[in-house]
Order: sequence, then structure tokens, then C-alpha cells
Amino acid sequence: MFQRIILLAVFLSFFHGFCKAQSEEEIENIRRIYTNALESDFAYEGLRYLSVEIGPRLCGSESSLKAIDFGESFFKKAGVDVVRRHKITGPNWESGNIAEAIVYFGKTQQKELSICPLGFSIPTPEKGIRADVIEVPDFDSLHKLGRDNVEGKIVFLNKPFNNSCINPFEAYGQVARNRTQGAVESAKLGAKAVIVRSIASEIDDFPHTGIQRYNDEVEKIPTSSISTLDAEFLSQALKANPDLQLKLTMNCKHFPDTVSYNLIGEIKGSEKPDQVIVVSGHIDSWFNDPGAHDDGAGCMQAIDVIRIFKELGIKPKHTIRAIWYMDEECSQSGGKQYARKVIDENEIHIAALESDAGGTTPVGFSCTDSASVEKIKAWIPALQDFGVNYIRQGWGGVDIGPLKEGGVPLIGLNVDPQRYFEYHHCANDTFDKINRRELNLGSAAMAALIYLIDLYEL
Amino acid sequence: MFQRIILLAVFLSFFHGFCKAQSEEEIENIRRIYTNALESDFAYEGLRYLSVEIGPRLCGSESSLKAIDFGESFFKKAGVDVVRRHKITGPNWESGNIAEAIVYFGKTQQKELSICPLGFSIPTPEKGIRADVIEVPDFDSLHKLGRDNVEGKIVFLNKPFNNSCINPFEAYGQVARNRTQGAVESAKLGAKAVIVRSIASEIDDFPHTGIQRYNDEVEKIPTSSISTLDAEFLSQALKANPDLQLKLTMNCKHFPDTVSYNLIGEIKGSEKPDQVIVVSGHIDSWFNDPGAHDDGAGCMQAIDVIRIFKELGIKPKHTIRAIWYMDEECSQSGGKQYARKVIDENEIHIAALESDAGGTTPVGFSCTDSASVEKIKAWIPALQDFGVNYIRQGWGGVDIGPLKEGGVPLIGLNVDPQRYFEYHHCANDTFDKINRRELNLGSAAMAALIYLIDLYEL
Repeated sequence: MFQRIILLAVFLSFFHGFCKAQSEEEIENIRRIYTNALESDFAYEGLRYLSVEIGPRLCGSESSLKAIDFGESFFKKAGVDVVRRHKITGPNWESGNIAEAIVYFGKTQQKELSICPLGFSIPTPEKGIRADVIEVPDFDSLHKLGRDNVEGKIVFLNKPFNNSCINPFEAYGQVARNRTQGAVESAKLGAKAVIVRSIASEIDDFPHTGIQRYNDEVEKIPTSSISTLDAEFLSQALKANPDLQLKLTMNCKHFPDTVSYNLIGEIKGSEKPDQVIVVSGHIDSWFNDPGAHDDGAGCMQAIDVIRIFKELGIKPKHTIRAIWYMDEECSQSGGKQYARKVIDENEIHIAALESDAGGTTPVGFSCTDSASVEKIKAWIPALQDFGVNYIRQGWGGVDIGPLKEGGVPLIGLNVDPQRYFEYHHCANDTFDKINRRELNLGSAAMAALIYLIDLYEL
Repeated sequence: MFQRIILLAVFLSFFHGFCKAQSEEEIENIRRIYTNALESDFAYEGLRYLSVEIGPRLCGSESSLKAIDFGESFFKKAGVDVVRRHKITGPNWESGNIAEAIVYFGKTQQKELSICPLGFSIPTPEKGIRADVIEVPDFDSLHKLGRDNVEGKIVFLNKPFNNSCINPFEAYGQVARNRTQGAVESAKLGAKAVIVRSIASEIDDFPHTGIQRYNDEVEKIPTSSISTLDAEFLSQALKANPDLQLKLTMNCKHFPDTVSYNLIGEIKGSEKPDQVIVVSGHIDSWFNDPGAHDDGAGCMQAIDVIRIFKELGIKPKHTIRAIWYMDEECSQSGGKQYARKVIDENEIHIAALESDAGGTTPVGFSCTDSASVEKIKAWIPALQDFGVNYIRQGWGGVDIGPLKEGGVPLIGLNVDPQRYFEYHHCANDTFDKINRRELNLGSAAMAALIYLIDLYEL
């Protein structure tokens, strides 16, 4: 027992040695941050407006600009010292209003399937593409079949989500290429079009979209996503009727790039106003996605951090900058052009934090560089009473990612990931899937971390 | 840096010293447990049937017996070696089919409020109780008002849920006495009836019920719960019209105790069949509560542990006993009579695990005795890759609680608590609030812990 006490003492001093021990005042401020966040409706009601009243808001769309308009007044309501738009050039692809897939069994039977276009897909001819269907789980199987079995057909990429992964983001990673590269890999073998099984953890009737990438050296063919329920149906139907045909009709369209905006709001730093700490989410969402979890939640949490600081009268030494990035989903033009501007203007960023994994219960943070991981780990004693127990080296975020070029430590809010792939990139990502307490705990965790970074830097 | 490596080594050996280090085979078995659990629909589909087809199932009700019938076949489907009913005597209180509260403003206006009876409440007279309303937040305020201000009135206990608590169970604890003791404390001052604000984290229209306790020395008066939305309304209405009256009508009824059952299913131990490890939930739910989270989830996870062991061919040394306890909600007669039987028959129980905090993402375990906490903590290296990071001394569970008399280590599954008080004891506790992955992770965490307890004992 004695040995254990010694060890405990050594262990505690190990933590102590790494951090300036948080003072009572600092712990009390973190407690005030949590109380303020948990008792607030600001983020929750903002998210209700964004996801219910504005809804889907893909970069280039009218609603994406409405979201920026709304954001400007919302940032002011949060109490920012300044708010401004950062003008960017972003993509302008429209999903259109026709996305139809009809299965024909023999001469008379037919059934419509739940599909939607994938991001940047070209349209089909107006009358659609009718062809035989060839089902494969992945590109290995596709390539083994070869051109003889693929040419002229619609490729059906049907690999189920691997639910045995503890972290469903791992399962997502295992099948994401079917979506992003399906059109290119299928076109290489002469396919006419592609249908990809939605990347979703559940069997339901929502087609989940997402970006896909053409390759200039390969013919572009239309590519779409099918709900998991109808992927199961189509697979069964193909077993019973290998000769069934499918007609795919979509009128999505890619327009030239257009003007859009990142939205920026700040509290000016009291001692080092030229040193910036970014806290961010992305304001765009897919054409079929009201964007409650992806990523209205992150946007609301980012600006909630500012509101909390202002309401509590916490005056940061550094400038705290909330950013709603535009165009995370398609080309990341918002994040890239923001980082370019930072580098061009020699602006100093001491850290960037992003929330883009849904508005569920926060569990910790992941950070791109090991030195920052060690620093933040040393703060755990101040945070663990508030449920933040887990700091690891890893992913920061898509939008803040380009800041890495400038050596900025990037941090991602880690949340409970279990429900995310029920909602991701589909019409099921609605406001009623948000729990107010979970959302607010995210705001609080972010505000607490920003508070500590402002005190101790990374 | 060198010092840190030394320390890490010491730290690891600290863990190592406490546990027989898990072998590769054991880690692999835990991995298999998780994979099996996450890929299964057994618990999820069982819970669908229980909460959708059977629904609310208060002890004494016909549906509670249907749930036991269903359970018997479901236990067999899970592969138990034996299944049996443990006959108990349990309470038999019925909510009735009338629970009406009408506010009268002046002569003509009226509005019906969302209320329900609290557990064991007596009915009102058939024509209801019409009286003035006196609003107080708590008993301190009530007692300060004194008999002169309370006598003949309906007491409205209106203390909001303290959302600033990080753990909402703490907020629950802060106001639970308003519900459990409201009738007694109000009757002491001559009140005619009681309306208690629902203990719920959100403002919505569901009245949340729960047990309340009369005192033989104090007159019994009818007592009810009002939705948070209508509590807010009534409070506002009282400010505008302090003379408003409220008419409460309820026909709930308390019948004599009746026969009911705990359901028990086992895998017989291969080496020590007379030593039992309990894994459990409670099968009863409130009259207004389909009991998806409370506690259909725990029941399904308990029997899922047996299914997982059977499917994977894991042959435990000790007897693993799944129990669906009856009557957690009212009198805990199932848990008490089970423990009595264990003690009377000198049955050896080496541990008891309960899941009764909802079917959300597991985060760890709490354990009643410190020695077991230390043992289980030593297993964390085997569990943390699976998301179980958090072992603490604390609550085991209501149903297993009476086993403490026999010195049995009691363990509760700890899950993310943030959403629980949206569902607890009300009609919102429906199957669609369950996420399959979260539910299955609970089964897996429980099975992994039982596996380790079976190997190393507590």
C-alpha cells in the first residue's frame, strides 16, 4: 500500500511538473464556463434556426448565403468585437431536382429505389441511362471482373458498413473510396454509371451523399448513392434476376466557380491582439442534409465559445477568432483560402480548434503535434471533472488542416461517434437528433480548452 | 525525458502487479466479444419487441407477465442452459385511465394540463378536487408558508431541473424528494393534493412519473406529476391570476399485493458451478413508459451477455446468471426477495452487475467496494481500447443492492447520462430513442467485464 501512495505522489507530481498548476481561480472559471454553457439555449436555438429554417446549404446555393447573413447577426448577438466576411471563390454544383433509379424485372415489374447524386457528379442524359447491373463489393473485385464484364453496365458498389469497428469513423474509412473513386474506377472499365451503397451504420431508407472525385484522364460517368435498405433490396433482386435492368436519371449540374464567404468574428486579445486562436466549424452542408450534426453543431459551438467568454467577462490575452468555414464538403475552398491569406499576411496563429464530428457528448481532443498533446494532457487534471478525459495525437479537422503548413497546432473536438453515421450527409441529419445538453457540453469543452490555451499557449 | 520513461515503466508495472496480465488469447476473446456484440441484432430486436409490442409493464399488470413470457422464450433463444421463474410477491397499483388537471381562470377560461399520477398515489374523489393552488420550489419554502397558506389548497412543487450539473443524475438527486415526499410534506400542512414538476432535463409536454412514499402517520392525499412545459405555463398563469383554481381528477388504485416473477437464465459454470456471477436489468417499467431505455436496454444487454458467451463458445468457470428483476420501480420486491433467497439458501455470489442507466454509450463501471475497484482498474489496459476508461467507487444498482448484505461486490454499468432525463419514466422512452451500436457496446462492455471476473474473480 505504501508503495502505491509513493507512486501516486510521483504520478501527481509528474502531472504537476508539466503544467503550471491551475489556480483555484482558473478552475473556478472553467466551472463557470460549464455552468454558463449548460444553462444556455443560445447554441441550441441558433442550430434550430439554421437547420430547420435555412436547412441544406451547399456552397454556391442561395441558402448558403442566407446562412452567412443569419450568421452575421448571430455573431453580433454572441457579442463579437468585430464580424466580417472573408470572400472566397468556391464551387457551384447543383444536385438538380431529378434523382431517379428504377429497377426493371423482366417485362412488367418495376420498383423505384432511394438514390441521390454524389457530389460533382455529371448528369445522365435527359432520358436516363438504362443498363444491366453488375454488383461488386470493392475495386479489387471490380478489376478482377475486367472490362468484358463491366463495359456498358451500371456498376453497383455494395460493401456493407463494418459495424464491428468500435469507432465507426474507422468503418467509414474502410469504404469511403467506393464513394470517392467509384466513378473513376468503374469508367476505366467502360461502365456507364455507378450506384454506391450509402456509407451508413444502419439499414434505412436515406441515401447518403458525399464528395466524389473525377480524374481528368478518365471519362466522367454519372455516380450516385443508394440507401442501405435499397442496396440490400437491389442485391437480393440481382440474385433472383441477374438480368434485371436499372434506369438511372439525374439532372445535377456543375456551374463555374462562384463567390462565397467564410464568416469571421472575434474577441480582440487584451495583451497579444495580433496572435490568434481559431475556433471553428463549417457552415455548408450537403443538398439533402439540413446539417444539424454536420456541421451546424460545430458552427454553433464555435460562436458559443465567444458568447461564453463575453458573458462571463473573461478577457483573453490573445485574439479569439470564431470561423464558420464555407465549402468543407466539396473542395475545402474556405479552409484553403483562409490559410493562404494567413500565410500571405504573416498572421500569427497559435492554435486552431475545430468541431466537425457531430454535436454529441465530448470525450476529449485530438491534436496534430505531439508537443501540444503533452501540454494539453497536462491540463487534464483541470478538465477531467468535466468529462474531458482523453487527449491523443491525431486529426485536427478538414477546414483548419491547411493551417498546418504554417506550423499551427491543430486540434479537433472528439465526441461520442456512435450515432454519427445515421445522420451523416443525408436527410436524417435533422434538429430533433440534437440533444441540447450534449451540444452545450461541446461548447463548454471547447471554451475551457481555449481558455487554457489563452493562458498557457501551446 | 528519461525520467518520464522510467516513470512510464513504473506506472505500467504498477498495473501489471495488480493483475494477472491479460494474455493474447484473453485480449483476442475480448475483441471477439466486441465484434460479436456489434454485429448482432439480438438485443436491439428483442428491445423492439419488448418496448413496441409489449410496451409499459408495471409490476402487477398483465403486460408485465407477458414480458416474462416473452423473456422465457427469448432466454432460450439466447442459448441459456436453464431458464426459470423466481416467484415473488409484488405490489399491484394501477394508474387508472383518468388523470386530468384543469386550470380555471376566472369564470369562463379553462385549460387542461399534461399530468399523470405518481406511483402509489391514492385517487381523487370521482368528481375531482377543485382548489386554489400554492406554488413553492421546495419543502423549505412550503414549511415557511405554514398551515395558514397551505391548508385546503393544491400544492404545486415547481423546482426546475438544474441543467448546470455535468452529470444529470446529480440534478435528479437534487429534486427527487419533491416527488417522493411531496404528498407527505404537503399533507402535514393540510394540503388537499399535490402537483410536482416532472424531473426532466428538457422543457416538453411529457409528464414523468416515479415512486412517491406515503407515511402511515400522515394523511394520504393524491399526488401527480406535471410536464415541464405545463409547469412553466401554470407558474406563469399563477403570476397573472393568483386566484386561479385547479381541478385534479385521477382514478388510480392500489390493490393488494400479487404474484409476480423475476426471470432467471444461466450458463452453468464448468469448474465452479455453485459460484454465481449475476448480470441483470429490470423488466418492469412505469405505466406510461414503454421502457426502452428504462430498463428494457439493461434487460437485453444482460441476456445478450449469455448469447455472446454461447455463440463464441466461451465456457465460464463460474455460473453466469442473467436476471430480469421485477418491480424495480415501486418496491424493489424482485431484488429484495432474490437476495433473501440467496442468503437463505447460502448460495455463493462472487459478483453482481446491473445495467439500469439507459442504453447509451458505456463509459465505465462503478463498484461498491474499493478492493473490487482496484482489481477492475487493473484490467483497464485490456478494456481501454474498447472505450472503457473509467472505473470508480460508487453505486452498483437498485436491484442488486440487497445482495450487499451478503458481501457481494456490486457493479453498475456507467453510460453517457446526458439524454437519460428526456426519457426517464415517461411516454418519450420509446424504441426510436435507442441506437443499436450504443446498446450493443453496452452488451460488449458487460460481457468483457464478466469474462474477466470469471477468469480472475473479484
